[in-house]
Amino acid sequence: MSLPLNANILRIGPPLQHAQTWISHNTLALENGGRLKEVTTCYETWGTLNHERSNAVLICHALSGDSHVVRHDEQDTPGWWEILVGPGKPIDTDRYFVICSNLLGGCRGTTGPNFVNPEGTQPYGAAFPIITVRDMVAVQRRLIDHLGISRLHAVIGGSLGGLQVLTWAIDHPEAVKSSIVLAASARLSSQGIAFDIVGRNAIRHDPNFAGGQYYDGPAPEAGLALARMLAHITYLSDESMRAKFDPTRLQPRSVDSAFESTFSVGSYLAHQGDRFVERFDANSYITLSTAMDLFDLGDSKQKLAKTLAPSTCRWLFLSFSSDWLYPASASRQLVDALVAQSKSVSSCEIESPAGHDSFLLENTMEDGGRMIRAFLANDPSPANSSSVSYESRIDQPTSIFHGQRLDYKMILRLMPEDASVVDLGCGNGELLSILRDRGYRPLLGVERDQEQVVECIERGHLVIHADLDKGLSAIPDQSFQVALLSQTLQSIVDVAGVLEEVVRIGRRGIVSFPNFAHAPMRETFLREGRLPKEEGLYAYDWHDTPNRRFPSILDFQELCSNRGIHILEAIYFNSKNGKEIVDDPNLNADVAVVALTR
Amino acid sequence: MSLPLNANILRIGPPLQHAQTWISHNTLALENGGRLKEVTTCYETWGTLNHERSNAVLICHALSGDSHVVRHDEQDTPGWWEILVGPGKPIDTDRYFVICSNLLGGCRGTTGPNFVNPEGTQPYGAAFPIITVRDMVAVQRRLIDHLGISRLHAVIGGSLGGLQVLTWAIDHPEAVKSSIVLAASARLSSQGIAFDIVGRNAIRHDPNFAGGQYYDGPAPEAGLALARMLAHITYLSDESMRAKFDPTRLQPRSVDSAFESTFSVGSYLAHQGDRFVERFDANSYITLSTAMDLFDLGDSKQKLAKTLAPSTCRWLFLSFSSDWLYPASASRQLVDALVAQSKSVSSCEIESPAGHDSFLLENTMEDGGRMIRAFLANDPSPANSSSVSYESRIDQPTSIFHGQRLDYKMILRLMPEDASVVDLGCGNGELLSILRDRGYRPLLGVERDQEQVVECIERGHLVIHADLDKGLSAIPDQSFQVALLSQTLQSIVDVAGVLEEVVRIGRRGIVSFPNFAHAPMRETFLREGRLPKEEGLYAYDWHDTPNRRFPSILDFQELCSNRGIHILEAIYFNSKNGKEIVDDPNLNADVAVVALTR
Repeated sequence: MSLPLNANILRIGPPLQHAQTWISHNTLALENGGRLKEVTTCYETWGTLNHERSNAVLICHALSGDSHVVRHDEQDTPGWWEILVGPGKPIDTDRYFVICSNLLGGCRGTTGPNFVNPEGTQPYGAAFPIITVRDMVAVQRRLIDHLGISRLHAVIGGSLGGLQVLTWAIDHPEAVKSSIVLAASARLSSQGIAFDIVGRNAIRHDPNFAGGQYYDGPAPEAGLALARMLAHITYLSDESMRAKFDPTRLQPRSVDSAFESTFSVGSYLAHQGDRFVERFDANSYITLSTAMDLFDLGDSKQKLAKTLAPSTCRWLFLSFSSDWLYPASASRQLVDALVAQSKSVSSCEIESPAGHDSFLLENTMEDGGRMIRAFLANDPSPANSSSVSYESRIDQPTSIFHGQRLDYKMILRLMPEDASVVDLGCGNGELLSILRDRGYRPLLGVERDQEQVVECIERGHLVIHADLDKGLSAIPDQSFQVALLSQTLQSIVDVAGVLEEVVRIGRRGIVSFPNFAHAPMRETFLREGRLPKEEGLYAYDWHDTPNRRFPSILDFQELCSNRGIHILEAIYFNSKNGKEIVDDPNLNADVAVVALTR
Repeated sequence: MSLPLNANILRIGPPLQHAQTWISHNTLALENGGRLKEVTTCYETWGTLNHERSNAVLICHALSGDSHVVRHDEQDTPGWWEILVGPGKPIDTDRYFVICSNLLGGCRGTTGPNFVNPEGTQPYGAAFPIITVRDMVAVQRRLIDHLGISRLHAVIGGSLGGLQVLTWAIDHPEAVKSSIVLAASARLSSQGIAFDIVGRNAIRHDPNFAGGQYYDGPAPEAGLALARMLAHITYLSDESMRAKFDPTRLQPRSVDSAFESTFSVGSYLAHQGDRFVERFDANSYITLSTAMDLFDLGDSKQKLAKTLAPSTCRWLFLSFSSDWLYPASASRQLVDALVAQSKSVSSCEIESPAGHDSFLLENTMEDGGRMIRAFLANDPSPANSSSVSYESRIDQPTSIFHGQRLDYKMILRLMPEDASVVDLGCGNGELLSILRDRGYRPLLGVERDQEQVVECIERGHLVIHADLDKGLSAIPDQSFQVALLSQTLQSIVDVAGVLEEVVRIGRRGIVSFPNFAHAPMRETFLREGRLPKEEGLYAYDWHDTPNRRFPSILDFQELCSNRGIHILEAIYFNSKNGKEIVDDPNLNADVAVVALTR
């Protein structure tokens, strides 16, 4: 059976010249009841499937997207993710076989409300069944099977696309090696659903809507444009709208629209609304936004743990600081739920002013592109894995206070063999790389600085972007053989809380810290009556040091003792002469490396 | 001329039994051009105007409000601000003569689009001119004159009401003694305007709207309900919607509405929309929301300074942490602009989960009510002004480290006579009260803790709710004779930055701080090799002290010297024996009080 030729179907949006269609004649049973007798899928591909069929990357598009991710040649119209996909780009079409299909329920070639119901003669219209993200993914799965791919190298998508990625990993774990979820969460907030409800009602109350059976007459363009204008506000951020419209707030763009003639922001939205109705179907908008609103992996840790349990892939979550539709905090819930199950997961909350749309924009996806490229490669880039130089650095008997990390050597001495390790405050992953070279597995980093998180991921490490003061609770008790805290203690506000976490998470905690009571410090303070200032970690003025806490070895020991934390082993040394200190370390050592347990 | 009796006017909303109407026959020239030949004002009053006509409080209502602030008797229907207004309440009708009038452009008895145009026979409808907040206030001013009041004790309002308060203070400074602005700012954000634009277009695209001339037929109820549903989302917060709807997100309330039957949040909004159309006119909604969007006191410091310059009143600004329509940061811009002109201003950013609507809710307005009550009273409550006990406390020769403030005495010794003073980190206003008792004027406090801000205002002080690390830049150079920083230095992260501000703001800075290098601290550190722990300010464990910085007198002196800050005078003392220290204060004193200048 060929693609139905009803004029109302094919005239929505510009033609997709390189799209292919495939019709599955197997009846699709839908999650919420009902069925579709046959499903047409419209899709595009880029690159070449390799002999092992192991290099396929499936891209899942967002609500208003389609299969046209990127142009196929110079003459082609631009796609919606040109910044990320193409030869040499992060999703490299020279390396991967990239697939994207129009969603079930969409209006750009895949079965949706604008299709003639194969069991009748009229378009589905409002009779199109309520579909879910699970149904969309079921259709994609059939397409992947049809293409002869049993396991995807990766599935990636943002917003509604991210919800599909989550569903792929949960419903088809054997078919997904890696999942990359951008700007998505376990469920939309009630606020987000509320906006969608207003938008859908704007469509339904448009007199042209005619209960959804409008394909023989004028489309409910005013209602659809209003829904789009409203949704578009939620895709931006307060700050990006401020930057874009405040300087000219009473100078509307000269757009030919019935919607707005006073405010600059209004003319912009009107333009968005007017263009949208030229390429999108109102029934599809209702269908797809309802699927977004119904998507719900759970609102509690317990529920999330259950729904995510089947997944076996490696995960990367990217969220954006100014996204208030699928906020970073909601993405973090998913990350926490996966961490709680000791799944392989990395995350980064990208600082961006551009709101939810950040995942589509070049200037806010630079770090995102770096992480996606590295995560897809799934091996440490040789350029970044300079293990030889680490080895030379850790064997050099020089002060840690000159950017050298002599304490790494001491940490390694306190490490059990073949251990799993979490490095709390892992920086750019230097120590994790040393541990990986020495065979330690699995490894996880936690780091709060975005640039360092990006470097960790480029080195091929799993890393969670989080603040030690509040981000550790998701990691299960005793889930790592070793929990490291290396030269980080002095910058933590809640020292006792983090120490408790170290010995809760790791069977063995290993903590290195500077000893602020070593002899030169005491003597300076006694003699000069001023806060001591030394080289390296102590080389700060009293009034603007990043150090928040000033531990001595004795203070540290007492804190451990008061908290029922046992010190198993300790190495104290003087970094000036590289000597280990046995006699009165609190006086003579400037660095302590201590192994702890609860 | 009597109130027009067209049925379309009086049937909007339930009757206001105690409302009075007054018709001004003077033509009103409107800010944006055009004129109204006569204006009817509908208003209500509570309490009694005193003989001096000095106890009148004008309440300005928000977009969807009306003159019915509070019930007049037991049988009356409840008003919209029962929590704040009434006998014994913060706006005490036993004490004040309270007035509220329906807005110009409204639909509850004051001239608006639903009034018959006195120059014709039809309701104004869409022919009602574009009005501004300035026009609304001009009409209120006429009413106040009509009531024989030349100067209002206070004007108060939230949201659109707050915009009217701002306009009163700017346009009619001689008529306003005090202004209280809640949940308002100098201009709505582009995001906020965008939501309004979508709402107005939902009304205009309702087929019943008929270009605004719908009074002879059915009203554009679907469009108005959609506008209300959308606006209602912006009045709540993400967190309040989460709390309200997430536990039952797929259990809609059983409301009889065409709008929603799937989601709980939708049925709630549908209910709001359906009820709103019973009491509000769509043309008024367009008229008033446009006035809100056009309101603009300026987007730069320079512009704000210019627009606010004419005001002469005392100001109180209350904003709410989760308000994203008129956010606290925008309220702060106004406060800063007034502070920059050395106007009398207090502010508090109230911690609240309830969003913009917080100013209407009992549980989020408890502190707000306390501040409004005290600010209206405009004199320190005797219960809180226990100056006698301060005097006894400062003369008691005991350690400041036991909750006593011996350093106050030293500060007073370094104070010039009759000075103006800003107290940075003023706590609950204890020192400000001492200074007031001794005749110092004017006084201003800056404090970051909400409860302490409330107490300051209850003591009758002007206080800005701000963080010293970032909130001082608005205070002009050398605008106070003395800038105080009392026992606060050690908890500040950016010590140098705040010190620079102290000597920029004050001709004389007076700073008191604990000396961490006094002899017992040094000796303990030398002998025990542990971070010293003493009584009082030092009585914290090294790992959870609120102190972030550990100044010694020498360190402090060096920092001043490096920054070109001159030490004019200093008093060092030992709080244990209450003695002043002259010999080696860095060793022998535990407290320093230093007078500085640039």
